[in-house]
Amino acid sequence: MKYPQNWQARAIRPDGPSEWFAARVPGNVQYDYGRMMGWGDINYGENANLFLETEDYTWEYQTTLQYECKEGETAVFVAEGIDYRFDILINGFPKVSHEGMFTRVEIPLANGENELTVRIHPHPKSERTEFADRAQAQDSVKPPVCYGWDWHPRLLVSGIWQDVYVETRHADYIRRCEAFYTLNDDFTRAEIRFETDCAAPVEITLYDPDGNEIGKGDAFTIENPRLWWCNGQGEAALYTYTACTAHHEVSGHIGLRRARLIMSDGAWGEPYGFPKGRSVAPIQLELNGRQVFAKGSNWVNPDVFNGHIDEARYETLIQLAHDANMNIFRCWGGSGISKQDFYDLCDKLGIMVWVEFPLACNCYPDDPHYLQILEQEGSAIIKSLRTHPAVVMYCGGNELFNNWSLMTDQSLPLRLLNKLCYELDPKNAYLMTSPIFGMAHGGYTFYDPDAKCDVFTLFQNASNTAYTEFGVPGITDLENLKKIIPEEELFPIENKGSWKLHHAFEAWGDERWLCRDVLERYAQEPLDSLEKMIDHARWLQCEGYKAIFEEARRQAPYCSMAINWCYCEPWITAAGNSLITYPVQPKPAYEAVKTALRPVMASARIPKFDWKAGETFTAQIWLLNDTHQQTETSVDVSLRLGDETHPLFTWNSGLTAANKIGPSVNFVLPDADATDMTLILSAGEQTSQYRLCYRSRTERRVSRQLNV
Amino acid sequence: MKYPQNWQARAIRPDGPSEWFAARVPGNVQYDYGRMMGWGDINYGENANLFLETEDYTWEYQTTLQYECKEGETAVFVAEGIDYRFDILINGFPKVSHEGMFTRVEIPLANGENELTVRIHPHPKSERTEFADRAQAQDSVKPPVCYGWDWHPRLLVSGIWQDVYVETRHADYIRRCEAFYTLNDDFTRAEIRFETDCAAPVEITLYDPDGNEIGKGDAFTIENPRLWWCNGQGEAALYTYTACTAHHEVSGHIGLRRARLIMSDGAWGEPYGFPKGRSVAPIQLELNGRQVFAKGSNWVNPDVFNGHIDEARYETLIQLAHDANMNIFRCWGGSGISKQDFYDLCDKLGIMVWVEFPLACNCYPDDPHYLQILEQEGSAIIKSLRTHPAVVMYCGGNELFNNWSLMTDQSLPLRLLNKLCYELDPKNAYLMTSPIFGMAHGGYTFYDPDAKCDVFTLFQNASNTAYTEFGVPGITDLENLKKIIPEEELFPIENKGSWKLHHAFEAWGDERWLCRDVLERYAQEPLDSLEKMIDHARWLQCEGYKAIFEEARRQAPYCSMAINWCYCEPWITAAGNSLITYPVQPKPAYEAVKTALRPVMASARIPKFDWKAGETFTAQIWLLNDTHQQTETSVDVSLRLGDETHPLFTWNSGLTAANKIGPSVNFVLPDADATDMTLILSAGEQTSQYRLCYRSRTERRVSRQLNV
Repeated sequence: MKYPQNWQARAIRPDGPSEWFAARVPGNVQYDYGRMMGWGDINYGENANLFLETEDYTWEYQTTLQYECKEGETAVFVAEGIDYRFDILINGFPKVSHEGMFTRVEIPLANGENELTVRIHPHPKSERTEFADRAQAQDSVKPPVCYGWDWHPRLLVSGIWQDVYVETRHADYIRRCEAFYTLNDDFTRAEIRFETDCAAPVEITLYDPDGNEIGKGDAFTIENPRLWWCNGQGEAALYTYTACTAHHEVSGHIGLRRARLIMSDGAWGEPYGFPKGRSVAPIQLELNGRQVFAKGSNWVNPDVFNGHIDEARYETLIQLAHDANMNIFRCWGGSGISKQDFYDLCDKLGIMVWVEFPLACNCYPDDPHYLQILEQEGSAIIKSLRTHPAVVMYCGGNELFNNWSLMTDQSLPLRLLNKLCYELDPKNAYLMTSPIFGMAHGGYTFYDPDAKCDVFTLFQNASNTAYTEFGVPGITDLENLKKIIPEEELFPIENKGSWKLHHAFEAWGDERWLCRDVLERYAQEPLDSLEKMIDHARWLQCEGYKAIFEEARRQAPYCSMAINWCYCEPWITAAGNSLITYPVQPKPAYEAVKTALRPVMASARIPKFDWKAGETFTAQIWLLNDTHQQTETSVDVSLRLGDETHPLFTWNSGLTAANKIGPSVNFVLPDADATDMTLILSAGEQTSQYRLCYRSRTERRVSRQLNV
Repeated sequence: MKYPQNWQARAIRPDGPSEWFAARVPGNVQYDYGRMMGWGDINYGENANLFLETEDYTWEYQTTLQYECKEGETAVFVAEGIDYRFDILINGFPKVSHEGMFTRVEIPLANGENELTVRIHPHPKSERTEFADRAQAQDSVKPPVCYGWDWHPRLLVSGIWQDVYVETRHADYIRRCEAFYTLNDDFTRAEIRFETDCAAPVEITLYDPDGNEIGKGDAFTIENPRLWWCNGQGEAALYTYTACTAHHEVSGHIGLRRARLIMSDGAWGEPYGFPKGRSVAPIQLELNGRQVFAKGSNWVNPDVFNGHIDEARYETLIQLAHDANMNIFRCWGGSGISKQDFYDLCDKLGIMVWVEFPLACNCYPDDPHYLQILEQEGSAIIKSLRTHPAVVMYCGGNELFNNWSLMTDQSLPLRLLNKLCYELDPKNAYLMTSPIFGMAHGGYTFYDPDAKCDVFTLFQNASNTAYTEFGVPGITDLENLKKIIPEEELFPIENKGSWKLHHAFEAWGDERWLCRDVLERYAQEPLDSLEKMIDHARWLQCEGYKAIFEEARRQAPYCSMAINWCYCEPWITAAGNSLITYPVQPKPAYEAVKTALRPVMASARIPKFDWKAGETFTAQIWLLNDTHQQTETSVDVSLRLGDETHPLFTWNSGLTAANKIGPSVNFVLPDADATDMTLILSAGEQTSQYRLCYRSRTERRVSRQLNV
């Protein structure tokens, strides 16, 4: 029996303790404190800055434990996760000192031990840096994102972020029940074996994915098992089980699948010639023997207050990913690990999960204390995730082998994590970081000023095994902007105040993420209203994301992953790369990505975004098909320019179970009174449209006069 | 007290047991059997083929144990290494079944247990291959080289390859005494700590590198310690110790140093632009805080009969490397691990050791049995090597991430080895394989037919962090050829018989390693005698090796390793890439490499080997200096062509503690009656000479007539 408790909390400030205030559990104490202080919605204006003064406070949660311990029961205080370094005191006596938010803490309770205090120490801040940024997290296993990122305000949250309760237990309490299995090579037989930790015999009952009982025991052989497949490839079949003793019952599910990282097609042919390096690292996901193109998005912290996320929010967000034809989340390390509900829902909805340990963009040290906490937290994370079928791979952290992090293959934290994954879950892959050799991250804007080209061209010139981060920014819709930007700041937009705090400026270079320089490059009218700016940014974000996702798919099978940066956001940003506006509202870019990820679709490889009258417009027509099913499609190709739609040709793909390249468009662009044009691929009831920049002769004359 | 034993052996053949024959221990039973059979010197003619019939024999060693067990002693049978899978029977009863040649086996002996048999099972041969080559070793931790390589005959050796003896021990026997230490960041203090395993107190006495007693105890602090440096960088200082009980004494040495792999200078600046991959992997050796350019050679099995190698042979070979200005051996994984004497001598002579586990060019499996043996053997290897100061890094094996091996970062054997190194010796680096990202292997011939250029050009066009294999073949000298090629086969050379068996043909493509095609490319006379062929091959091998070693050094600090393929050879080859002819005779190429590795030297970057009259000859003049000491040199540059020496210029380098580029030669080559020319750099008493191919106008006319 679990007894949740009522909590109050207070801040220990330099001037002494604050008054006590009601604390939401699970939650974050800074939120509760802000409520007491009357700081208002953190999304609005510059309210977030009010929280900065709380950074170095110590916090205390307090409760008088309420529970009933019956005959034969013992009581245990259980904390599933407290963020980040804390002591637990009972009746004033220290019982536990702990560092790490991903390990569960349990304290047996004696009769009369009722007054419980959780004292949370100030946030870790590395002494190896003088800057108030993510580097302050470089000596701890605290996910660094709350120290500030280009899309996340600096807001150092802590507190009781997972469930805590008193649990009363009989002697036959089931401390652990875990299912392991092997599949034979052709997936026609599964051998399931249960491990339990209990002082009494445990009766386990296994059910098939329809809920029919298979039998009782602790080992099962299943002939022709129903396999767990990711979204788009088949059923996400889940077997279930219950495990019972006289006084206790637990339940769980099992997804039978084999997931591996194998070499991309063609990658073994490289490198050619001497002196010869190594071949690229494997990143092609193979699920149940089938090479799956991984389509998805980077999951980041969906709330500044990570303790507030609940199953309902997870479900809405994951269902949206499912509906957008995604099959994978890369759960970015900077945000840490999610609550168990997240992985349960991914299991259910067939979204594969790339788990990253809480390391990102820092140089985590070879220091004994850090390694000790990392071993503790890493072990807890792996043990809590290894039976989820959705969890297909682990990764040491984000961009650790680049010059803003300065870690290498020899860094002991990454060698330690490899060791832990090997010991605790050797059947899943382990990457030291992303990107590794062959993969790539970026770019993050529609136009790349260094490469001097747009994302259409940039990605067609690239040849990578996986694109696991890339972004195209947009501006948030007006309704949401009004929730965060005070009326008087809305327009004209200036690099200060709420726009700046909400990442429109100086997030990643001066003009990011608003990108006025990029918008103006393609605008053939003055951007003299917020609506016009939003429209232009939306256009580039939608077309840019489609261009990259579809190009990555066309580069299959050498390329096998397209995962954009990023999926959700932790608060309402004014501008940024996410597909979902906080908390759960899809952007137009979400809809664009959804079309670009259709399992079977006509697609155009268009060499650039920006065209002018008189040029010969070219585009390769493709059929994309990642279903592994034979399909045949007839594609009508036309170009709409101004009032006129020019029919170009019809291509019949013939039967194919994979991508197929078709003919190319060659069409001399007439002069027309238009600033855009749309390439239309009609394939039965489906359409793929690409709205491109078009410059008439008139526009160019005007441009020349304006010396643009 | 150790009691060696006298051994006899026999083969268990399909037709029954052979007679007993005397067995050399340590040694290889196939050698002893060959002696009994009268098969002659294995180096001669095609004698090596006679041994093929023994491949699948079972072998038995037998002895009647002779030892004296005094009052208070117990007796133990100790086998330091038996190759590869064996049982030990005493008085006919099986006592031990074991797989693995790198783990020690000990068996306590009771009174009257005198008759000891070692039964060695046939060689492991993987069932996953149908070919009689190295792939047969892919399921075992048997070093694959004896299954046949392009420079090693197929000769499957096994047997008691390390010392075996009966040891009588008192209760205070010291089972283990190991020294560990930490150095502070500026190397001014060492903390040494001893770990012992003994039933009685152990008295440890520590001595400084001059043999003066420092003190007694099990922990020592040394202020301003004398550090261990590799050859060319300082003293290879060794502290020593004795550890005593009443009846037992062991001794050892300690070299105090910190070795790390760090990023090469400039490597963090890459890659540039988006989409962005990872930076290369670190391979720059840093010793005691100093970046050391690693100059050396690939150590391979120096005897077909690996059991016969002794301390004297090791010492001669390692001293030669020391004298050639080398500071590192890459101990290639295909050959396995050497005996302890090898590492002791490397400690003493300052030769750093890159240790490779016994995996090479195969796809070692994720199979539980293989992983179990690898864990056992890997652990034994690391524990036996971790206190040697010379051992600076571990590597999973050779060329495992290339398409002739098909292993990847996800292969469990390589993840397991990472785990073992992390647990048992985390202060030394671990590479999964060589090459990793940034490094390169090859080429192996003077002229590359795919790149259509010679090694001068090939390596100047390359940009790698380390060249850890590259080879230029030569033909063995006439005196040694006569030891292996019967008189009647010597000339003309044909692709068959002894030449072929000794790797002149079909070792690596038809014409390797004799390379008549390459010799003829540069020969301006018919190669109508063996002497002429040997001379031409020697010319290319010497100039080729100098060109590559010096180019790699010029590419410092981005490049930080030059390690040629290979150092020694296991028998007398007719042609090949080694610097030493079996057993210990330096080739002319050894002398050439010795000059190219001088710590301070003038060097010329010559864009190609092959020049003709009328061309403008160019060469950049460099001063190479890897001593980290300031030096200043004046270099006189001249070109000798025919009878004439053309003085070109004098360059004064100025003071420099690193490499420095000087002026370039530009010189229009006159027509001369010559087929070669020599660029001469005189710097005080030192000279660097480069003998290049020169073609006069006459030669070209002749060539045209001959349609060459």
